Amino acid sequence: MIDLRSDTVTKPTDAMRAAMATAEVGDDMFGEDPTVAKLEATIAKRLGKERALFVPSGSMGNLLGIRVHCGPGDEFLAEESCHILRYEQGSYAQVWGVAVQAIPGQRGILEPEQLVDRIRRVDMHCAQTRLVCLENTHNYGGGTIQPIEAVQEICQWAATHGLKRHLDGARLFNAVVATGIAAKDWAQHFDTVSVCFSKGLGAPVGSALCGTAEHIERARWHRKALGGAMRQAGILAAGALYGLENHTDRLAEDHANALTLAQAISEAEGLTLAGEVQTNLVFFDVDERLGTAEQFNAKLAERGVLMFDVAPQKMRAVTHLGVTAEEVRQAGGILKELSR
Amino acid sequence: MIDLRSDTVTKPTDAMRAAMATAEVGDDMFGEDPTVAKLEATIAKRLGKERALFVPSGSMGNLLGIRVHCGPGDEFLAEESCHILRYEQGSYAQVWGVAVQAIPGQRGILEPEQLVDRIRRVDMHCAQTRLVCLENTHNYGGGTIQPIEAVQEICQWAATHGLKRHLDGARLFNAVVATGIAAKDWAQHFDTVSVCFSKGLGAPVGSALCGTAEHIERARWHRKALGGAMRQAGILAAGALYGLENHTDRLAEDHANALTLAQAISEAEGLTLAGEVQTNLVFFDVDERLGTAEQFNAKLAERGVLMFDVAPQKMRAVTHLGVTAEEVRQAGGILKELSR
Amino acid sequence: MIDLRSDTVTKPTDAMRAAMATAEVGDDMFGEDPTVAKLEATIAKRLGKERALFVPSGSMGNLLGIRVHCGPGDEFLAEESCHILRYEQGSYAQVWGVAVQAIPGQRGILEPEQLVDRIRRVDMHCAQTRLVCLENTHNYGGGTIQPIEAVQEICQWAATHGLKRHLDGARLFNAVVATGIAAKDWAQHFDTVSVCFSKGLGAPVGSALCGTAEHIERARWHRKALGGAMRQAGILAAGALYGLENHTDRLAEDHANALTLAQAISEAEGLTLAGEVQTNLVFFDVDERLGTAEQFNAKLAERGVLMFDVAPQKMRAVTHLGVTAEEVRQAGGILKELSR
Amino acid sequence: MIDLRSDTVTKPTDAMRAAMATAEVGDDMFGEDPTVAKLEATIAKRLGKERALFVPSGSMGNLLGIRVHCGPGDEFLAEESCHILRYEQGSYAQVWGVAVQAIPGQRGILEPEQLVDRIRRVDMHCAQTRLVCLENTHNYGGGTIQPIEAVQEICQWAATHGLKRHLDGARLFNAVVATGIAAKDWAQHFDTVSVCFSKGLGAPVGSALCGTAEHIERARWHRKALGGAMRQAGILAAGALYGLENHTDRLAEDHANALTLAQAISEAEGLTLAGEVQTNLVFFDVDERLGTAEQFNAKLAERGVLMFDVAPQKMRAVTHLGVTAEEVRQAGGILKELSR
Repeated sequence: MIDLRSDTVTKPTDAMRAAMATAEVGDDMFGEDPTVAKLEATIAKRLGKERALFVPSGSMGNLLGIRVHCGPGDEFLAEESCHILRYEQGSYAQVWGVAVQAIPGQRGILEPEQLVDRIRRVDMHCAQTRLVCLENTHNYGGGTIQPIEAVQEICQWAATHGLKRHLDGARLFNAVVATGIAAKDWAQHFDTVSVCFSKGLGAPVGSALCGTAEHIERARWHRKALGGAMRQAGILAAGALYGLENHTDRLAEDHANALTLAQAISEAEGLTLAGEVQTNLVFFDVDERLGTAEQFNAKLAERGVLMFDVAPQKMRAVTHLGVTAEEVRQAGGILKELSR
Repeated sequence: MIDLRSDTVTKPTDAMRAAMATAEVGDDMFGEDPTVAKLEATIAKRLGKERALFVPSGSMGNLLGIRVHCGPGDEFLAEESCHILRYEQGSYAQVWGVAVQAIPGQRGILEPEQLVDRIRRVDMHCAQTRLVCLENTHNYGGGTIQPIEAVQEICQWAATHGLKRHLDGARLFNAVVATGIAAKDWAQHFDTVSVCFSKGLGAPVGSALCGTAEHIERARWHRKALGGAMRQAGILAAGALYGLENHTDRLAEDHANALTLAQAISEAEGLTLAGEVQTNLVFFDVDERLGTAEQFNAKLAERGVLMFDVAPQKMRAVTHLGVTAEEVRQAGGILKELSR
Repeated sequence: MIDLRSDTVTKPTDAMRAAMATAEVGDDMFGEDPTVAKLEATIAKRLGKERALFVPSGSMGNLLGIRVHCGPGDEFLAEESCHILRYEQGSYAQVWGVAVQAIPGQRGILEPEQLVDRIRRVDMHCAQTRLVCLENTHNYGGGTIQPIEAVQEICQWAATHGLKRHLDGARLFNAVVATGIAAKDWAQHFDTVSVCFSKGLGAPVGSALCGTAEHIERARWHRKALGGAMRQAGILAAGALYGLENHTDRLAEDHANALTLAQAISEAEGLTLAGEVQTNLVFFDVDERLGTAEQFNAKLAERGVLMFDVAPQKMRAVTHLGVTAEEVRQAGGILKELSR
Repeated sequence: MIDLRSDTVTKPTDAMRAAMATAEVGDDMFGEDPTVAKLEATIAKRLGKERALFVPSGSMGNLLGIRVHCGPGDEFLAEESCHILRYEQGSYAQVWGVAVQAIPGQRGILEPEQLVDRIRRVDMHCAQTRLVCLENTHNYGGGTIQPIEAVQEICQWAATHGLKRHLDGARLFNAVVATGIAAKDWAQHFDTVSVCFSKGLGAPVGSALCGTAEHIERARWHRKALGGAMRQAGILAAGALYGLENHTDRLAEDHANALTLAQAISEAEGLTLAGEVQTNLVFFDVDERLGTAEQFNAKLAERGVLMFDVAPQKMRAVTHLGVTAEEVRQAGGILKELSR
């Protein structure tokens, strides 16, 4: 099977397994896991932040990032189709009682002027606007990169108006590799940044929330409320650390493979790229002549290619370290055959 | 002072006061207040619903309307600038843990096709879409009326897809009077409807949530959780009942007065109506030449006219039973003088 | 009917109705209701507090009192059978996400030493203990009075340990009248105090939360989130003010009547007082020979006396301004007849 | 160092590491991790339940166990000093809006008659009682075992009255080994059971919630809301499975070691066992002559023995696979020396 459903399906490499197998561990609830500590220090440094907190998922990283800035009666601003709003079960509202103002972007990308006038006045009639959340790269937007200038402008506007900034950086390293802009140059505009080790970096489990010492201490407290504190988590942290140190640069291969796939799609009759491919995600529309996306997906699966149908006529494919350039070429060929 | 800030500023008339003074009362927590019971039966019948529940505010009516259809992990669809989203402190999220998908309308009015594709799939990644909320007339949209055809189409679409429908009918009777369409003909498309007695109908306090017996029993339960159950509430219910029976038809006067005011605004230099006036709300833009809306508002106040500045260059005026046609003409004259 | 179910069943007197009928009112959401303002100033002064907030119910007063001191992740200490824990639907947890440590008292009364060692350590494993709530008089305890010395000792201990103090003073004026200790002398030990106008004071609707200006401003904000803000609430405030000014001293009559009833019960075969009667609540046990409390209650009702069965063999009777000394004597006679 | 602070400090053995290193994995969010699936099937079968769900912590297992039975407005019954109430940050209230009735036990053990009369009536004034939670063995009670007869009696009473039953079985296998009663014979009395692999069983991370297919599907949904879903969690599940299969029987050694330590304590002047030792937890009081527990603990640490001071004069020691019988004997000797 050529599995292009998500970069979350990657399996640990032998070297990563070896790192996990020999990881020094301790009880992280007592702050005694040296590998967790090392991972947290490493990712914090990489992002230019004081501290980091290891968590079991990107969703929890975002939940904690929201909670350190917002409580019941507050709201945040976010792009309408971002992961937090679309794919995290409304947990910001459900678990924390926080509201949101959703702003529709172009392929997930917001223009700074879209945020102006969105801050509610200080008035008991209104939820209080506390935070801007961006997602970069933007999953549902198509792996799109919010340009650094726009990030800077939005975050400066936010800071000027007393809003905090959180980055859902589940795929931040894809943006880093695609743009050549360092992680800390992206992260400097945000108070908190969550990053995932279990997507492009290929670790089995884990994400981190990074920020000031104070924010991270509060996040640690809230993590306990969610049941997200783990014991000898160094086993997982070792995999995350390995991925961080060894699988960042190779994201360029995923991006190249995504372009290969995009090329095939652009050549396929009945398939239409949903926009320029910027990183490792490829969204495309399926002509109704070929059936629904679900039906087209089923045919692909029969031919050994796995993707996701994300809307009635829309598909998503994701490249990652679990698929080779050759496999992506094969998948492209199969796409073309099936769309004739 | 000519107070055009809101139709919530009305004071009870002598006749309404007399009705309250002589109201038969009992302990409504024990279901023994005959005037509350009469009000609830009357408004339920007027809306063609089985039952109604008297509550201290429109905000509570909406909170309960949302809660009988949604819980933590659920979401509802609503127009972006509706009262529930803009002016109720995000209480649906804060108090109930419910999320929302906001859809931008034209002056608060949604086109049915804007809702299509908004229902999240049944998938643990997603908040589950359970409810559509409409507001009619739409306050921030400018007292605009969601046309009955669109209401019908949206609600049928919603019902077909298993969504419940709640109407924020704080100013439903304005829509009734403006269109000649009976309250029950509007209400039949909704599972629950909240209406306010303390706006155009001129009662001092109170709203009602109407729906099926089952919905209203659940709302009664949730009302207790909010501390919204009152004892001898018949005093208030008598005022509400009086307003319902005596002040509905006269909303036509408010609408005529609003048109008078709108005419003056359209003739005033530097002021621009924000759209056709359909009921009793008049929104208009203030040219920057005249200063900000806040500054313009201050000048109006000096001349004895009270309005609200709702945005940097935007004003709102509301006609109601506390201002006469003559006063509205005077206010219009002052507007024209000040905007020269 | 002699209605001894609760002091919440009182109906407004003619004089109170007259006060309401002529009350000067305004839109209290805009802070413009002079009668609400007067009531708030009066009750605040009576309790020696800076400010007060009028709310539709005692439950809402307590909800707001808890919320200004506690948020999600916090807890408060309270007697196990107090109204907040027993009869407010767990709203502190449900609506605010606040936890509680319940401490069993003797007829609702806590000994100061019971609280020692109850404060959780500052540790992310623990909800953080922020607040002590007392109820005085204590409803389910039997209208019992928490002695002023114990109140003082508990509150000083709490203050020393950084805990806030909230008093559920739904029946505080009963304690005032029974002890001769002024309301402000009780209230001085607490940060916030809620009092009810709709119980012994005989007003149709309403309670107030009293405290510092800062606490009350925050409570006003949270009241909006619950939908508890009302418009021309001066109608109700006038009744509350009338009750406060005219019905406080007469609580002594209710207490005398309660003793009359208690005497009858003590003389009745098969009925046993559940403890000394201190104010206007009388709890007593029904011997199984007479059937269950529910059955006994039904027989009473046939004879025109209404009480509550609060447990399988336990009854509650409450005296109030709606029942005369003569009626209470009659009720006592009927009790004796039925328990033979 | 002889680390007796908790059985959570165990480090994975070489064999357990080998199992993790070679674990077959997949994306568990897609239900494709064979090792997670195997663990879930194995623990479900061991407990006689239909299904199980792997979660990152015991706290999350309990949170989910509560959530599948209770929502906002509901409450559960639990022993006052149980882990859920004492050491999980009030998350049942904070995150889910659920209330609790706490019942004080003897060393954490409840008598069935203590629960009678605790069910609130179906009345909007009351949180609705839905669930009984037991903890077995009971941590803060001293590793005590709730006898099977009491478990059965409580759970039958609960079932008869329509209450669900959840077992916090973080240390259920200690009860199994100590009593010889099989896990499924304990579990049969409960709707849901959470068990931990990271305590006595020695796995680095993880717990499971077990129950009916329906309960577990709902728990899976709620797990997502907490951010508790992990990707290639099979790495952890392999460790948990290894512990389950290889470290259950050896808990008898921990129990024997605990008795050894208890014997030393009983012989030490100034130390008093807090009750009979039943499993692997040993609580004892420190005479004030020896200073506070905190001070005594510091002296122990200087001598290379780690314990917890859990109250001003109370200590806790825990035996586990990371300490040998010889080390426990040494620790006992040091205790005796320091308490002279």
